[in-house]
Amino acid sequence: MAHPQTLFPQTSFHGPSMLASRRATIIRVTVKAQLKRLKETGQFACFDLKWQPIYGDKSRWPAPPTLYWDSDVAKWIEGACYMLTAEYDAEVDAAVRELVDKIRHAQREDGYLNVYFTVIEPERRWSNIRDQHELYNAGHLIEAALAHSNYYKNDLLIDPLEKYVKLIRSVFGPGKDQRHGYPGHPEIELALLRLYTATRNQDAYELAQYFLEERGNPTGQDGMRYYGWERVQRGDSPWKRPNCYPMSADHWYNQAHKPILEQKSVEGHAVRAMYLYTGVADLLCLDELGLKPYGAKSKYFETLCGLWNNMVDKKMYLTGGVGSMWQWEGFGIDYFLPQGSAEGGCYSETCASIGVMMLAERMLHLDLNSKYADIMELCLYNTVMTAMSLEGSAFTYVNQLASSESDKSARETWFDTSCCPPNLTRLFGSIGGYLWDYGGDETGNLFVNVHLYTTAKVTFEVDGKTVVLEQRSDWPWDGKVFLQLQAPSSAATTIRLRLPAWAEKRFTLTPTLESPTIQNGYVILRPSYTSANKAFTIDIHGFKPRYISPHPYTNQQTLTLARGPLIYCVEDADNAWEQDHFRNVGITSGSGVTEHQGVLDKPGERFIALRTVGWVRKLDDEWARAGPGLQPGSHTTGSIETEARDITFIPYYLRANRGGNGHMRVGLLRQ
Amino acid sequence: MAHPQTLFPQTSFHGPSMLASRRATIIRVTVKAQLKRLKETGQFACFDLKWQPIYGDKSRWPAPPTLYWDSDVAKWIEGACYMLTAEYDAEVDAAVRELVDKIRHAQREDGYLNVYFTVIEPERRWSNIRDQHELYNAGHLIEAALAHSNYYKNDLLIDPLEKYVKLIRSVFGPGKDQRHGYPGHPEIELALLRLYTATRNQDAYELAQYFLEERGNPTGQDGMRYYGWERVQRGDSPWKRPNCYPMSADHWYNQAHKPILEQKSVEGHAVRAMYLYTGVADLLCLDELGLKPYGAKSKYFETLCGLWNNMVDKKMYLTGGVGSMWQWEGFGIDYFLPQGSAEGGCYSETCASIGVMMLAERMLHLDLNSKYADIMELCLYNTVMTAMSLEGSAFTYVNQLASSESDKSARETWFDTSCCPPNLTRLFGSIGGYLWDYGGDETGNLFVNVHLYTTAKVTFEVDGKTVVLEQRSDWPWDGKVFLQLQAPSSAATTIRLRLPAWAEKRFTLTPTLESPTIQNGYVILRPSYTSANKAFTIDIHGFKPRYISPHPYTNQQTLTLARGPLIYCVEDADNAWEQDHFRNVGITSGSGVTEHQGVLDKPGERFIALRTVGWVRKLDDEWARAGPGLQPGSHTTGSIETEARDITFIPYYLRANRGGNGHMRVGLLRQ
Repeated sequence: MAHPQTLFPQTSFHGPSMLASRRATIIRVTVKAQLKRLKETGQFACFDLKWQPIYGDKSRWPAPPTLYWDSDVAKWIEGACYMLTAEYDAEVDAAVRELVDKIRHAQREDGYLNVYFTVIEPERRWSNIRDQHELYNAGHLIEAALAHSNYYKNDLLIDPLEKYVKLIRSVFGPGKDQRHGYPGHPEIELALLRLYTATRNQDAYELAQYFLEERGNPTGQDGMRYYGWERVQRGDSPWKRPNCYPMSADHWYNQAHKPILEQKSVEGHAVRAMYLYTGVADLLCLDELGLKPYGAKSKYFETLCGLWNNMVDKKMYLTGGVGSMWQWEGFGIDYFLPQGSAEGGCYSETCASIGVMMLAERMLHLDLNSKYADIMELCLYNTVMTAMSLEGSAFTYVNQLASSESDKSARETWFDTSCCPPNLTRLFGSIGGYLWDYGGDETGNLFVNVHLYTTAKVTFEVDGKTVVLEQRSDWPWDGKVFLQLQAPSSAATTIRLRLPAWAEKRFTLTPTLESPTIQNGYVILRPSYTSANKAFTIDIHGFKPRYISPHPYTNQQTLTLARGPLIYCVEDADNAWEQDHFRNVGITSGSGVTEHQGVLDKPGERFIALRTVGWVRKLDDEWARAGPGLQPGSHTTGSIETEARDITFIPYYLRANRGGNGHMRVGLLRQ
Repeated sequence: MAHPQTLFPQTSFHGPSMLASRRATIIRVTVKAQLKRLKETGQFACFDLKWQPIYGDKSRWPAPPTLYWDSDVAKWIEGACYMLTAEYDAEVDAAVRELVDKIRHAQREDGYLNVYFTVIEPERRWSNIRDQHELYNAGHLIEAALAHSNYYKNDLLIDPLEKYVKLIRSVFGPGKDQRHGYPGHPEIELALLRLYTATRNQDAYELAQYFLEERGNPTGQDGMRYYGWERVQRGDSPWKRPNCYPMSADHWYNQAHKPILEQKSVEGHAVRAMYLYTGVADLLCLDELGLKPYGAKSKYFETLCGLWNNMVDKKMYLTGGVGSMWQWEGFGIDYFLPQGSAEGGCYSETCASIGVMMLAERMLHLDLNSKYADIMELCLYNTVMTAMSLEGSAFTYVNQLASSESDKSARETWFDTSCCPPNLTRLFGSIGGYLWDYGGDETGNLFVNVHLYTTAKVTFEVDGKTVVLEQRSDWPWDGKVFLQLQAPSSAATTIRLRLPAWAEKRFTLTPTLESPTIQNGYVILRPSYTSANKAFTIDIHGFKPRYISPHPYTNQQTLTLARGPLIYCVEDADNAWEQDHFRNVGITSGSGVTEHQGVLDKPGERFIALRTVGWVRKLDDEWARAGPGLQPGSHTTGSIETEARDITFIPYYLRANRGGNGHMRVGLLRQ
């Protein structure tokens, strides 16, 4: 089963759309801006293996930013190759070639390929795979190599990576003299399975399978948990631990507290969790293709479904963000979803929501259900898209739902650990691969499952014949989607169109179809319809502004405006009267909302703003003592004075693009 | 200025009251039950300095429970001496004498007196005062010695402690060869100041002053923070840290992140904070008496007021509990006050609220204001009193406001670290000293400030003449307090009576007083009134059930019933239909509440239960998917079905005394 990162070239964005506009910005601005940053920071040169002054900084343990440099470069190469596919750029092309040349020369004779443990601590190879990212870096290099070989049609990068995989395979595994370990930061698993899919590299498959099955084994190495064994080898105290571990032996931080099949809830670092479970889902996808027998599949699938539901139902913000805990950049307890630092948490890392999209995409292959695509779209248009400025040169890492004085709503050009910016590049580079699944067999049965709407065209071959499906829409602003199919006259084509849950099954199909079948959230257009109607339109309703709230168990008594797939927020750029991060601002469910067309001149972004009459609570820090507080620590329940106020909302993805003081909030008070 | 621990014998509980009943239980049951536990655990014998098998357990670093054994024994001695004052018991008397004998023999020649660092790690004295409690233990031993000398009128225990103080004074201080350290767990400061008050021991005063002024100095020892310097001496990695430190160098955990004068908010471990600030307040109390000049007094007082207000206004539960964070048993961010583990926190340790009472008592000396006494009473009748079973043999350590499956509402007979049970004993043993302040001068001006109401009598001498003030009431059930004064006919007596904030200044004085003066929450009865009326009654209103809520910024949309000083809760013992810790149960502000007299047969506890008609929300884990969830992760705002339900409430202090399944909640949903 192919991956979006492989299939995306079959999709072209042939007309204007929000996705096309974002892609254009990344191609023309972001890829080069990131390249510039890579050069400024020393990352571009790091595979030269020369000493750089920053390597001497020992202030951060166990993970100085230089430890991840390989992966930042790798993600940039991957994204650059995707974008070169769409639009050639000589500067980017030359930079990729130069980097590949450096990487080839950086490889050790035995296949080892890692900057930090070649230049800085060569004697500590594989000494702390729990915290020190060797395998994570390897995974991103493999993904870069796959993107590179797809675009350049040569083996210049994939060759050294296959050699490196062979080395890793010899170090880790079930053998008596092998290490029974697994990566502290999962990523290589999904990369290895993509490598296997592309090249049938047996080492890659077996290594991924081993990492996934061995993970969390409490007695895997000399009767100890691998990370404990590794610690003993290093001579570290059990009480010495990285800052991201709240307490000692908190193995849930990297999903290693128990074997995957015993994991019932998503825990720990959110990006690690998403990459890990994407790897598991991919293992099952491979099994579905019959490539490998995989006995425990049903149990693994059940586990994945349980983890998915736990995350979406109890640990996801309504922006698609995950991770309420700042310290470990990850999941808190069920229903603990404060909007921002001032309320006790909220992390919602960009990479984590990209990971959710990756997992959702795999889940759709295992179980075609709009609930996965709904979340994929929610993440894309909200937490992911908010992570880059419209100009394409500034980014977020953390995406809180409410700003505060210590965490204003703002973007930065780069980060110490700069995983998020190049992750956006590679996601938007391969986004075509997330729009739809398709295929067919030699008997002429074809299918296209449309998960995401935009303006795009997919072209693929089945049995030597070309199929094209085109969609045109003004998504995410409007629900009308025009589709046109070109397929061999002999083909029997089934098209499934996702109905987002917020549409509440309301749609209009033109030409009409008597009693259309809706299955797992997709309208099914059978061959009888698609052969009679090569062009048709689905108008998905639900683009009126709606009020939504988090689950009552979150104790968030808030209301948020949404419209179609977009979640809205308030910003002081529009509501300049606000001084306290909208902490005392409320709206009333059912109040009339008006729509206003807006446009941002410089990047030419059209959008729809919303307005309603809300209210401001008359309450400040002194309220408790001055007002109805009859007993410090508690208060009578008398009503609090409020004042009506016109409030303007913009899509969350647009925040922090228009100046202001960084005051922003998604969930407002609910009366 | 004398302390409640010294003055309490002047107060007798001469009639029935809730406080008298609790004291009787502790005298007859608790002191002996705790003695039995001390003997079973090995604590009683620990000052014999013989090896015990538990000493070999190295699984807990840096603080195995044996590290605190000295303090557990010391607190028991202190409480036992207080209780012996009230009622002699030969077994308790013998045990105290035996322990004192052991302690005397345990002292090293140089004055050192600590079991752990004499028997278990003798080479590591003073090597980790941040975490290893040597000075904390010393503080409790000093307090035990003071209690002992007051009751036994001999120096058998105070002598070795004065010798130990002399040693500590030689080790710590500003001298070139001294250590510039201060205790990781404050306690010795307040103990030293009490010792100074009792004995005028200069070492004690200077040592306390040094510890308080040096605390938080970022460059105190060889240009480093003392705890950092100490770590370097030990050769520990900066990344090695106890489980209670969420991240490395989190010096706020023990209020050592900055000098006290720069501290603006209460942070870290709540008991440490309360003991520390009690020490600071006591230093200022001593200054008020003119015993010592203390230049920075006003700045210290301003700091204390800021810290008090931060705690009470933003970090205190409406039960008087403090500490929302389990990991460090302490304070979270402002307004972060979840009710229980299932909502993201709540610790509310018994000892912390005892510490709040100690601090409040000192603050009342510095600034007579009912806001301190209100909190003292809130803690006493709620978080503190709920910490012991009516039978007197089971205790709580943590006092959450809502139970959950992982933390049911229950008590235990003892704890690994058993600070709370003997702390209750010593608090109730000396509670007479918290009821009132009083004094006079040779000109015949007398005063009594009545902070807490009950049935009790205080007898004191002024200028060789005896003054007696008696109060009789059914507090906390009823607001009518009968007072009778016996004072020399020549005396001019001013009596100040606290008006709790919840009484909203409503009271009736009999005989009446035209336009009584109310100052800082106290009604002032001047000599003209007290000489004309030797007996009078104040009837404090506000004993009707009232609905209260936490501050809106807590995001706790809850309602709680209170009556007088008592906070109420619901328990499944009365509401047997409840299966989910009252998570979906709500009440409506203003709904009629009826009162019902109850009595618990075995301990003979009378109480008033409350009943109202509330409602149950029809919502379970499946609601999101089955019901109005139109988009996973968010929900429409349609109303949720509810069902009316009769609900019975009991005072929070009574919880977990009558069987049931441990389901309990203080704050119910608010519509």
